[in-house]
Amino acid sequence: MELKKALEEMRLLEKRRYAYNHAIGLLSVDAMTVAPSKSYIGRGETMGILSGEAYDLFVNEDVGELLGYISEHSEEITDRSLRREAEVLKEEYDKIKAFPRDEYVEYSKLLNDADAIWHSAKADNDFASFEPYLTRIMEFQRKMAEWYEPGTSSRYDTLLNEYEKGMTGSKLDEFFKKLSDFITPLVKEIDSVQDRVDVSFMQTTFPTEKQRILSERVMALMGLTPDVCVLGETEHPFTEGFNKYDVRITTKYREKDFLDSMYSVIHEGGHAIYELSYDDEHLYTVLAGGASTALHESQSRFFENIVGRSEAFISYMAPTFRELFPEALGNVSDRALYKAANRSTPSLIRTEADELTYPLHVMIRYILERALIDGGLKVKDLPGEWNGMYKKYLGIDVPDDTRGVLQDSHWSGGLVGYFPSYALGSAYGAQMLQAMKKDVDFEGTVGRGDLAPVKTWLREKIHRYGGLLKPEELIQNSCGAPFDASYYVSYLEKKYRDIYEL
Amino acid sequence: MELKKALEEMRLLEKRRYAYNHAIGLLSVDAMTVAPSKSYIGRGETMGILSGEAYDLFVNEDVGELLGYISEHSEEITDRSLRREAEVLKEEYDKIKAFPRDEYVEYSKLLNDADAIWHSAKADNDFASFEPYLTRIMEFQRKMAEWYEPGTSSRYDTLLNEYEKGMTGSKLDEFFKKLSDFITPLVKEIDSVQDRVDVSFMQTTFPTEKQRILSERVMALMGLTPDVCVLGETEHPFTEGFNKYDVRITTKYREKDFLDSMYSVIHEGGHAIYELSYDDEHLYTVLAGGASTALHESQSRFFENIVGRSEAFISYMAPTFRELFPEALGNVSDRALYKAANRSTPSLIRTEADELTYPLHVMIRYILERALIDGGLKVKDLPGEWNGMYKKYLGIDVPDDTRGVLQDSHWSGGLVGYFPSYALGSAYGAQMLQAMKKDVDFEGTVGRGDLAPVKTWLREKIHRYGGLLKPEELIQNSCGAPFDASYYVSYLEKKYRDIYEL
Repeated sequence: MELKKALEEMRLLEKRRYAYNHAIGLLSVDAMTVAPSKSYIGRGETMGILSGEAYDLFVNEDVGELLGYISEHSEEITDRSLRREAEVLKEEYDKIKAFPRDEYVEYSKLLNDADAIWHSAKADNDFASFEPYLTRIMEFQRKMAEWYEPGTSSRYDTLLNEYEKGMTGSKLDEFFKKLSDFITPLVKEIDSVQDRVDVSFMQTTFPTEKQRILSERVMALMGLTPDVCVLGETEHPFTEGFNKYDVRITTKYREKDFLDSMYSVIHEGGHAIYELSYDDEHLYTVLAGGASTALHESQSRFFENIVGRSEAFISYMAPTFRELFPEALGNVSDRALYKAANRSTPSLIRTEADELTYPLHVMIRYILERALIDGGLKVKDLPGEWNGMYKKYLGIDVPDDTRGVLQDSHWSGGLVGYFPSYALGSAYGAQMLQAMKKDVDFEGTVGRGDLAPVKTWLREKIHRYGGLLKPEELIQNSCGAPFDASYYVSYLEKKYRDIYEL
Repeated sequence: MELKKALEEMRLLEKRRYAYNHAIGLLSVDAMTVAPSKSYIGRGETMGILSGEAYDLFVNEDVGELLGYISEHSEEITDRSLRREAEVLKEEYDKIKAFPRDEYVEYSKLLNDADAIWHSAKADNDFASFEPYLTRIMEFQRKMAEWYEPGTSSRYDTLLNEYEKGMTGSKLDEFFKKLSDFITPLVKEIDSVQDRVDVSFMQTTFPTEKQRILSERVMALMGLTPDVCVLGETEHPFTEGFNKYDVRITTKYREKDFLDSMYSVIHEGGHAIYELSYDDEHLYTVLAGGASTALHESQSRFFENIVGRSEAFISYMAPTFRELFPEALGNVSDRALYKAANRSTPSLIRTEADELTYPLHVMIRYILERALIDGGLKVKDLPGEWNGMYKKYLGIDVPDDTRGVLQDSHWSGGLVGYFPSYALGSAYGAQMLQAMKKDVDFEGTVGRGDLAPVKTWLREKIHRYGGLLKPEELIQNSCGAPFDASYYVSYLEKKYRDIYEL
């Protein structure tokens, strides 16, 4: 075999995998957005067949030989993208090869069915109907950990590795301890001065039609133009990037809270910016997209919180808020809007939580999913454990599973080990902000509604590389230092002590 | 090989083909409904790859042997569905096998691109930008005719056969002559008494939001429930049935004409009813769906015109019209609404034409596409020819290509030979009505808004069979006689002489 020819074959393989991923991804997006409810029946058949075909085109002797050959000659590959593609593909190959084909197809169909069941279980507050599906998903996850890393000492660590290479339960224990040791007393302090943030003017209704206009303006502000990015509406907002010319985001509208839909747009918009910004050479390759889920969440939460919940941004948006909702907000000051948008109080729903209590929601999920995989927690006992955790860490009672254990789509989608990415990503973002401020007049440009310098900085330091650089390399590249969670702690502390005058 | 095992393999093959068709179909539906405009770039790659894979899984020696073996033993197959599946698959196999793989992939990508170009060409009245794509499509169509039937005496007849088996240009010449000989003088007669139909109360605006409510009510009336059928919005309405649990239809809204969107919903709803009603045994097989495009159009146009534009239906709907549009229609009588909805006058747009002039629009397309394939008409001369035909047959001047040759999506979608299906389907429908009236109190039940007896009759006579029976068998089965266009002529004559008091 000749290396040049082998690399051409590899690129063809990548493009074929892109095509199947695109089709399978679109079937999922369609399911979550516009498909009729019974469509899951015929989609299950299609998903089963296409995922089997996608498995076959990747896992076979020819591909094994090809990637083995390229791996042996990787030192000779001068193009660093090709070299990295080969490395990532080989890792994926070894992993998927360990996943027996029949189980792979069965798992794909299970996830399709579980999604439909989770939707109705959530709507009906009926955990019992979802329990057998979640049980099977968790069984699969444990088996997957064994396939990926036979004899692993911690199956959960193996699963974590799918999302953030090198992350472990013990590192996360330390990370979350650092966070909760700081957050828990601050939340108590805030509780005694909660009257310092007035949210009375938010206790009204904000017409959905007006919220849709706000979404359009926010997308325009973020540079998410309709030629490459469109917004849909779903119960659970998400981003799906098929390629750098086609990214879908969604939000949901609740009449009682216009900020909820706006921050969903900004959060998913942050993901979208990442998905739209890799260099052209990565198109249709295994390096298209982001470097890890934590890196991805660092971008979504950077835009949502560090940009979107900053005083500069809210001051810039305030005239728009007053224009769209004159009765409610016509006489509310910029500072009052800023404080209201950042009110911190223990709450039930992760995606609606303020920045300060948010990591506790993530920590609870982390503790529970780790216990499900490694600790012997049974799925049937999960709702009780969930509710106990919310009492213990957030001090609140969970009234029903709809607003409790059924609120997130991750576990029904087979994402076990994903949740920590949200907290890690938030911490990455705080460290990036500190570095960005050396190059960019952050408050100034955000306050003028000009996000271009922020986007450019992130693109040059992070986005353009897609999966070319590893997460730790991207942290080093953007922050000039390894990851350090203390930036996150000081960011939160400074912000909330200012807001609550503590 | 054992026959039983061969038939099992055949069923697996059918299901795999279903999966690819589902994915490819969804990519198209997505493109036409919600995808961002530049998504065509990455979709072209995916379409090219998936259509190539779909080709490979069908066109190969193993499948050739399998279908050959089954074909030799077809007399021994006792199950008539399996026997017919084998027959249809063999026909499709022989046809696609004749289509060289590279050309097949190239053609799929061409259609993806052509659709995007057609959309912008139509929006910008820019035929020149679309011309090279249409030229290539027509070249492909001529090549395809040669591949399907080497040495064919009429390439157009070969293409026609893709839509309605056994149909020929000479049969269509006769059919359209019979129609135009009757329609042309009647249109002239009507022109002199046009004041007998008052449409002045329709010259206003009908809010889109109200039209959307009307769409929902009409879908409910037709039994198109959201668990299996959803409505989208597109410039060009269409139906796509992925399987009997998942059918998509679309409509478009124009504030000046609420009937336009309503009749699009009913037309596409007629297609949807057909796609939702085949017997379970045909699910995921090559017999799922309709028997031919003319049969399909017979159902859509039956619901649109024979049901939807009947006096009984309009009288039933009249209170709803008045409720939704009280200012415009509050004081308009049922009879006046019926007449207004059936005003006949030469017009520019096929999909908005009245029942009487409609076949002339179809005839023009038939003459032109036949000339493009067999008669040496050049694509660059098409707009001039189109405009000349509209002058000759409908007596009107075409002001621009947007409302002329660019109005339909068929040719850009590679559908050459499809158009006659609309006129044939309309004629089939008129013959079915006459037969249905022997079993069903048509005016009575439609007038009560109860479409169940109509749907049941059509399901039992036509829909349930999917592709099991051939078009001529379905005509015989439903009408008790072979196709006879004179029912269509007398239906139109009776209806329009009544409306215009002639």
